[in-house]
Amino acid sequence: MSQLPASTKAITLAHYPKGLPTLDTFHTVELPLPAELQPGEVALRAEWLSVDPYLRGRMREGAKSYVPPFELNKPIVSGIVARVIASKDDNFKVGDRAISLLPWQDYIVINPSTHPAGPPFSLQKLDKFPPGVSFSNAVGALGMPGLTAYFGLLDIGDPKEGETVFVSGAAGAVGSLVGQIAKLKGCRVVGSAGDDEKVAWLKEELGFDDAFNYKTVGDLNEAVAKACPKGVDVYFDNVGGAISDAVTLQINPYGRISVCGQISAYNEDGSNPTATTGPRHDWILLTRNVKKEGFIVGRPAWAKRYPEALAQLAGWVASGQIKVRETVVEGLESAPKAFLNLFDGSNTGKMVVKVAADAQ
Amino acid sequence: MSQLPASTKAITLAHYPKGLPTLDTFHTVELPLPAELQPGEVALRAEWLSVDPYLRGRMREGAKSYVPPFELNKPIVSGIVARVIASKDDNFKVGDRAISLLPWQDYIVINPSTHPAGPPFSLQKLDKFPPGVSFSNAVGALGMPGLTAYFGLLDIGDPKEGETVFVSGAAGAVGSLVGQIAKLKGCRVVGSAGDDEKVAWLKEELGFDDAFNYKTVGDLNEAVAKACPKGVDVYFDNVGGAISDAVTLQINPYGRISVCGQISAYNEDGSNPTATTGPRHDWILLTRNVKKEGFIVGRPAWAKRYPEALAQLAGWVASGQIKVRETVVEGLESAPKAFLNLFDGSNTGKMVVKVAADAQ
Repeated sequence: MSQLPASTKAITLAHYPKGLPTLDTFHTVELPLPAELQPGEVALRAEWLSVDPYLRGRMREGAKSYVPPFELNKPIVSGIVARVIASKDDNFKVGDRAISLLPWQDYIVINPSTHPAGPPFSLQKLDKFPPGVSFSNAVGALGMPGLTAYFGLLDIGDPKEGETVFVSGAAGAVGSLVGQIAKLKGCRVVGSAGDDEKVAWLKEELGFDDAFNYKTVGDLNEAVAKACPKGVDVYFDNVGGAISDAVTLQINPYGRISVCGQISAYNEDGSNPTATTGPRHDWILLTRNVKKEGFIVGRPAWAKRYPEALAQLAGWVASGQIKVRETVVEGLESAPKAFLNLFDGSNTGKMVVKVAADAQ
Repeated sequence: MSQLPASTKAITLAHYPKGLPTLDTFHTVELPLPAELQPGEVALRAEWLSVDPYLRGRMREGAKSYVPPFELNKPIVSGIVARVIASKDDNFKVGDRAISLLPWQDYIVINPSTHPAGPPFSLQKLDKFPPGVSFSNAVGALGMPGLTAYFGLLDIGDPKEGETVFVSGAAGAVGSLVGQIAKLKGCRVVGSAGDDEKVAWLKEELGFDDAFNYKTVGDLNEAVAKACPKGVDVYFDNVGGAISDAVTLQINPYGRISVCGQISAYNEDGSNPTATTGPRHDWILLTRNVKKEGFIVGRPAWAKRYPEALAQLAGWVASGQIKVRETVVEGLESAPKAFLNLFDGSNTGKMVVKVAADAQ
C-alpha cells in the first residue's frame, strides 16, 4: 500500500452547462482515499484518460440519454487506463493494466466485482494488448472509438468495394479510423474536417481519396458533389447539421447513413439538442430507398463481438494498415481543457490525457 | 373492333404546378384512336383508375425522383384496371381484366410486349383475382397500396407481438392496411387521421387500439405520448412533418421508422419538397439505436416476392381479416378532382375512380 497516497486530485462537475461548457463547468478538488483496501478492492493509478464528445450528453440535468447524467460535485467519469498499484482481488495484481469507465482522479479505489459500470464496461485487464502499442490505444483505436468505427461502418454502413464512403469529422478519433477501414474495404473515401492541416493529413497520410475543409470550402452542396462524382453510398456521420444536409442531397439509391455523432448540436441548447432545425430530408430517404440508422457502440449484440473486432483492429494497427494519431495533453488538471477542445476542433485523431507522467 | 371508338377522352398535364395543384393543372382533351390494331396490340376499356399522392412527385419539371416527370400536354399515367375489348396479342383475350401503369383515357391501345412501364409494371392479367372481390382492389389492397403496406410494415418495420405500432395517415389507402396487418401480428396499433369520422372508423371498424384527430387533438407530443404509454416501437410514416416530429420523440430504443410517404410536404414548394424545415432529430436516432428507412415499393428485391405478398393479402381480404374501404368517384373527368382531394383528406381508405359505369 506504500504507493497509495492519503488523498487524490479529482475533477468534478460544478454545474450543468447551458450551451458550450467552460473551464468553470469543472472543479478540481482533493478527495480522501482509504487508508487500507477492503477485501476485493484494488487501488489504481490513472495513466490514460479519454475525453469524448458523448460526455457532453451526460452534463444535462435530467437528460433522458442512454446513460444517466453526471451528478453535480461528483467526479466526471470516462474511459481510463490505469495501472494496478495495490490489490486485494486475485484477478488483478500489481503492475497489471486495466480499463473501465472510471472517475477523473489520479488515484482510484474500486471493487471490480461491484464496480457499477457493468459489462462490457467492468474493469478489464489489458493482458492481450499488442506489444509495442501504447496502452493509450485502449481508449482509442483499440477501445471504444475503434469499436464505434468498426461496427458503425461495417454493420450499419455495410460498404462494398468500389462504393463511395463519406465521413464527417473525418480527422477525429472515430472518423480517422472509419476512413481507413473503408479504404481497406476497397471504397473511395472522402472526408470533411475543420482545418487545412487535418485535410492534408487525411489525404497524404491516411489515404483518403479526397477531403475538404468545411469551414473554407464555400458551398457545401457543391463541395460534396464535386468530391463525390458518383454520389455517396455510405455516409458515416459524426457531426450532423449543415454537412449532413449536403451529404444527404448526394446520397445514392439504397444508400446507408450511419449516425454516430452530432457534435454540431451537442451545445446548441442546455437541455434539448433537437431544438435546432434543418431541412426535412425524409423525402430523400423515401425516394431513394435510403436507410439512416443511429447507434451506440454498447449494443448488446455487438458487445458479444468485441473480442473479434478488437483482434481485427489490433492486427490492422500492429501491421500499420491503420495509422493512429493522438493529441496528447498532460496531467489530470488538463482534462477539462482537453474536453472543451473537442468542440473547437483542436484535436487531430484521438484526444487523450496522459495522467501519469510515466504512462506507457 | 366494334367496341373501339374513333377517339377517346384523355386527361393531360397542363402545367407543372407550384404548390397545391388545382383543376387548371389538368386539361381534358379528345385523342384519336387507331382504326385498326397492329399485330401484338390490345385495346382496353379503362374501368378503375388509381389516384395516389406519389403522382404529385411526377408533376415537377426536371424532378430527380425515382420516376421521371410527366410530360406536359401528355396524359397523366397511373395504375389502371382495364377490360380487354379487342386483342391481337395471344396472351390477352376479349373480356380479360388487366392492370398496368396506363394513361388517363377511357380507351387505350398498347402493345403489351413493348409497353414502356416495364416489369413489374407491365400489363398483367388479373386471372387469379379472388371471386367476389371487386377488381378495384387491384389498385388498392391487392395492388400497389397493399404491397406498400405489406413490405413497408413487415420488412422495414418488422413488428413483434406486443409492440406498439404508430401509423400516420392511418385512414388512407396504405395506412388503413398497415394498421390492420399490425393488428394481425399482435401489436398495439395507434393511428392519426384528419377528421373525427375517420378516427371513429379506425377504432370501431378496423380495430385500432387508439387513434386521434391530429387537427383538433391539441399538443401533438402529448397526444402521441398519451396514446402510446409504452412508447412507439414501429412508426409507419405516410405524412411527415409535425406528426412525425411528435412520434419520433416517443420512439423506443431499437425502434424502426418506415418512411412511406411525406404528403405534408408534397405541395410545399414547386420544385423542392425538402425546402421545409423541422427539428433535427438525428440525435434521437443515435441515442436510441433507431433505424429510419425510406422505401419505394418497386424495390427489385420485393418485386420477386409480389406473388407471395398478394396471395397473403388476398387471403386476408377474402376472409374479412382485412377490411377494405374505398372512396369512389365516377367518370374519367372526375380523376383530377379525386387526385386533388387526396391533399384535403376527403378520402377514407383508397381513393379510386370508376371510369366505366359497368366496371365490376
